[in-house]
Amino acid sequence: MQRTAAIRRELKRRRISCLIVTSPANVTYTTGFMGEDSWAALTAARTYLLTDSRYIEQAQKDCPSSTIVQRTGTMAQTVAGLVARLKLVRTITVEKSVSLADFEALKKRLKRPPKSVGGIIEAVRSVKHPDEIAAIKASGDIAGKVLRRTLPQVKAGMAEIELAGLLDFQLRKAGATNSFDTIVAFGPNASRPHHQPGRRKLRKKDAILIDFGARYKGYCSDITRCFVLGEPTAFYRKVFNVVERAQAAAIKAIAPGTKLSTVDSAARDVIRAADLPVYGHGTGHGIGLEIHELPFLKADTRAEKLKPGQVITIEPGVYIPGRLGIRIEDDILVTPTGCRILTRHCPHSYQLSR
Amino acid sequence: MQRTAAIRRELKRRRISCLIVTSPANVTYTTGFMGEDSWAALTAARTYLLTDSRYIEQAQKDCPSSTIVQRTGTMAQTVAGLVARLKLVRTITVEKSVSLADFEALKKRLKRPPKSVGGIIEAVRSVKHPDEIAAIKASGDIAGKVLRRTLPQVKAGMAEIELAGLLDFQLRKAGATNSFDTIVAFGPNASRPHHQPGRRKLRKKDAILIDFGARYKGYCSDITRCFVLGEPTAFYRKVFNVVERAQAAAIKAIAPGTKLSTVDSAARDVIRAADLPVYGHGTGHGIGLEIHELPFLKADTRAEKLKPGQVITIEPGVYIPGRLGIRIEDDILVTPTGCRILTRHCPHSYQLSR
Repeated sequence: MQRTAAIRRELKRRRISCLIVTSPANVTYTTGFMGEDSWAALTAARTYLLTDSRYIEQAQKDCPSSTIVQRTGTMAQTVAGLVARLKLVRTITVEKSVSLADFEALKKRLKRPPKSVGGIIEAVRSVKHPDEIAAIKASGDIAGKVLRRTLPQVKAGMAEIELAGLLDFQLRKAGATNSFDTIVAFGPNASRPHHQPGRRKLRKKDAILIDFGARYKGYCSDITRCFVLGEPTAFYRKVFNVVERAQAAAIKAIAPGTKLSTVDSAARDVIRAADLPVYGHGTGHGIGLEIHELPFLKADTRAEKLKPGQVITIEPGVYIPGRLGIRIEDDILVTPTGCRILTRHCPHSYQLSR
Repeated sequence: MQRTAAIRRELKRRRISCLIVTSPANVTYTTGFMGEDSWAALTAARTYLLTDSRYIEQAQKDCPSSTIVQRTGTMAQTVAGLVARLKLVRTITVEKSVSLADFEALKKRLKRPPKSVGGIIEAVRSVKHPDEIAAIKASGDIAGKVLRRTLPQVKAGMAEIELAGLLDFQLRKAGATNSFDTIVAFGPNASRPHHQPGRRKLRKKDAILIDFGARYKGYCSDITRCFVLGEPTAFYRKVFNVVERAQAAAIKAIAPGTKLSTVDSAARDVIRAADLPVYGHGTGHGIGLEIHELPFLKADTRAEKLKPGQVITIEPGVYIPGRLGIRIEDDILVTPTGCRILTRHCPHSYQLSR
């Protein structure tokens, strides 16, 4: 398996003989398993999945390259049993995302105190394999289709949560789930980037912000679109245009070897030049098995550079409290020569009647 | 605030001068805050909420009894800054649910190495206040209403995920969200207690299992109902009757001071006596801010006893692989004299036409 080969090279380089994988996304990445309450163990020779009776049937089907270890007692007992059975004399290393409680339980059960390490699998995961890119693309296609199917149902009087519910229903119907809790904001509510959809009802001339994504075959997409019920004001048009140009500037900057901070400031510069307030959040983030993963596009990541195979969002916005919030977000693959917009089929503008 | 008073008594008894609260449900419990990426700090005098710019507006509205500390750097820096500002000379204590990475970062930032502790707030949370019971009851009422509204739409040819999507949509429409991923299983799929709804289509005479719940004002409900599209077989009727009797036996056993294991075995005994396979999962669990919380009703919790104010599920089942799965689950409040079924308004049986 190509994925675990890259991880094993890194483990060898760091002289880690056995890595206990506790982060759910990393367990999925190394084994293919998508259930809960399970860990993986990686040695030079094998990948083990440590799961319980509820998931044995599923694990046998989904994890053909892993050895499945059925947990009966605690996770610490299971790890200790495996270590003893494999006659692993060297220290084991645990992912730092483990809870302190679990790490302490492991310490008690193991003869040699375990070490900890963070970020190994996360770094490998940030560069996607072709099947992963295909899954993210498919997930973005579903989100676009869901948006197209849902928009004709938007009408004045509908609550934010109702529109969120319609989107989620269409996601389910398309065979996907949510990659995160759908954000729907009407009118000035859109000025809060993490607004939770509520009972606010849609009025004529309201702006609408939708930020949502599909999870398909385990992989996330993440799209934000804004539009108006009726005729947009001149100010709305102006801000929308600036955000769209900011996004285009960032996307144009994307290429292997480009610094993350260069892409980040490309978008901010356009907004600043238009005398509009510059957003407080990052310009984008990696997507994959998690909705937020490496790399993170922020101002302070000076040294880090983009790599081909990374998939990132670009999502600048303008937020004016009490007045409006406009954000445009697409999912972009870094290619060997530049980039490809995976969500291009999903238009930025929509004309809503009524 | 009554909730934090009980926690502070326990902190005093254990000589903990400052508890750093890292578990999201415990942060909500102590502060009322429902956003993400935030911690709380409890001293003898005050409750602090440590959150970032995205959530300041929400925190000011939702957490009137907490002092809000805006985080700009890492969480460890923010905690260290607070500790310095408060001139806390004694050791701080961190919840064990913290990740090892965050605990290590804290260690580096603090002058005295922090200690860790688990389960203090979880134990306090297991006994509910009247407003919490009201929220759980309201959440159960919503789940019942959603089920009644959705069932008339069930028809042959519909996929499991579609029915799950309809339920989730009605939940949203009722102003709630999911307390966990809705389980819908058709026919023999119901024999897997944690089945994920898929593309399997509903056929005439199929049995249907629905396990879902609402989250309302932060509080969870959890209901399982089973029924048949058309006329149930004699075997289905028999098993359904046994499961219903098993549940009734467990509910009858519920009273303050009763051992958890007594309630657990009351249900299992009925199934065993009927010569049916005894389920592998627990008989029930606490519900509240989390869908699974203390107490857990299992065979091996011999010493632990029920307390008035606890809210638990009772959910025995019978699973026959390849044939059927039937589980009935209700939410029950332990009262000073016995118990009250909070989901009584939601009938166990439904007649589906077609």
